[in-house]
Amino acid sequence: MTVELSDRGLLLGDGLFETLLWRDGRLVLFEAHARRMQAGCEALGLPAPDAGELRRAAEAAVREAGLVDSRAAVRLTWTAGPGGRGLDRPETMRPRLFATAAPAPSSQTPVVLTTVSVRRNEGSPASRLKTLAYLDNVLARAEARAAGADEALILNNRGEVACAAAANLFWVWDGGLFTPALSCGVLDGIMRAAVMRAAQGLGLAVAEVAVERSTLDRAEGLFLTNSLIGVREVALLDGAPIQRSPVTARLRDALADVV
Amino acid sequence: MTVELSDRGLLLGDGLFETLLWRDGRLVLFEAHARRMQAGCEALGLPAPDAGELRRAAEAAVREAGLVDSRAAVRLTWTAGPGGRGLDRPETMRPRLFATAAPAPSSQTPVVLTTVSVRRNEGSPASRLKTLAYLDNVLARAEARAAGADEALILNNRGEVACAAAANLFWVWDGGLFTPALSCGVLDGIMRAAVMRAAQGLGLAVAEVAVERSTLDRAEGLFLTNSLIGVREVALLDGAPIQRSPVTARLRDALADVV
Repeated sequence: MTVELSDRGLLLGDGLFETLLWRDGRLVLFEAHARRMQAGCEALGLPAPDAGELRRAAEAAVREAGLVDSRAAVRLTWTAGPGGRGLDRPETMRPRLFATAAPAPSSQTPVVLTTVSVRRNEGSPASRLKTLAYLDNVLARAEARAAGADEALILNNRGEVACAAAANLFWVWDGGLFTPALSCGVLDGIMRAAVMRAAQGLGLAVAEVAVERSTLDRAEGLFLTNSLIGVREVALLDGAPIQRSPVTARLRDALADVV
Repeated sequence: MTVELSDRGLLLGDGLFETLLWRDGRLVLFEAHARRMQAGCEALGLPAPDAGELRRAAEAAVREAGLVDSRAAVRLTWTAGPGGRGLDRPETMRPRLFATAAPAPSSQTPVVLTTVSVRRNEGSPASRLKTLAYLDNVLARAEARAAGADEALILNNRGEVACAAAANLFWVWDGGLFTPALSCGVLDGIMRAAVMRAAQGLGLAVAEVAVERSTLDRAEGLFLTNSLIGVREVALLDGAPIQRSPVTARLRDALADVV
């Protein structure tokens, strides 16, 4: 499958994507992913895909990759489609949908996290969306790898904790659960929302907050979330060991059907 | 010409581009564009293209578009090439080069500029490079168009003046020339550098500064620059008329061979 060279997704990052987990012969939390992509289209001013179209493309990609009976990562890519020269979108947009599937990672090894220099752009709506303009995430991850870590802790331009390169972030403190507010420049993660719901179901208080990096030094547990890894503990942050919290294991158990 | 669906330029905005002017049968300021793309590759950790390869691709695109005897806009796109799932780059990167040419805009009508809500990410090296992750620029331009303007004035997260969606910005004040510093999250523009050289040649003082939006209210002349439009005056900023400065015309004359 190929993409036209005039595609605005390629030329300008003008588009969105979703990464879904395929498990036990089904797309996990499909409706939430479809709604997020549709909401993202509205935020970016793009025509939105139909949920049925997304589902058919995702399922076809799993079949074509021979992964129907496996655990698979499905990527749905929705580009603004072909356009002329420059930034202005054409009067009639013809977005394009692409779907691919690959074997899904399933490691539960705790993560080594390091704070990177690349900052999250809290001043752009794109920082709350899963857009094709993901270069800052690529650079953050590369910087973390070069420092011997698995993942990057990204702060925003105000110095507030935002997220990892490919995950949302939660921490436990004083019996409650905390996560950066979306206004910090944070992707509105599907697993982030699922964790917040699960925590409430367990009677845990959850707060969305804006905090500086030093707040994490007091964490009694720190974990990353996304649709593929589910809930994954952080073992080390900037070289310092992080406590393991029983809350993390309880949340993982509560989410067993979606991770 | 098409691009593989596995291309990291499409999937993640992992790559760079250059927009060059073709005029009088030659690529204007080609060496500066090639050097900028090579420096950008170094900043992003990508293998860099050879200048000869870039020139051959650009010239072939002009010929194929039938624009050899015209004024043309040439776009060189250098992607990180194919990769597997996720953010991490493959061990061996195979970047890809694409070139296209289109008739170049040549309007010199003064521009209507409006300040937009999308902020520039001063905290990422990508804000100083011409990367494929250009969605913030697309959003800024769309916001300006929706407000009835031609172009967007973009501030960074500190509230400092940065640039337009597809141009650098200069203003005249008290006989001197001013432009936002690169540290404000500003693309290191080829025409920006050419204007600074030309100004020095004319004996004008040039300062790279970090200023708030209100500073522009005192401007005695305001203009945009890029490789296609050269030097283009701003007529209105946020609805207020901007003085025309003789400095703008002098600079345009001094740059007649490159715009």
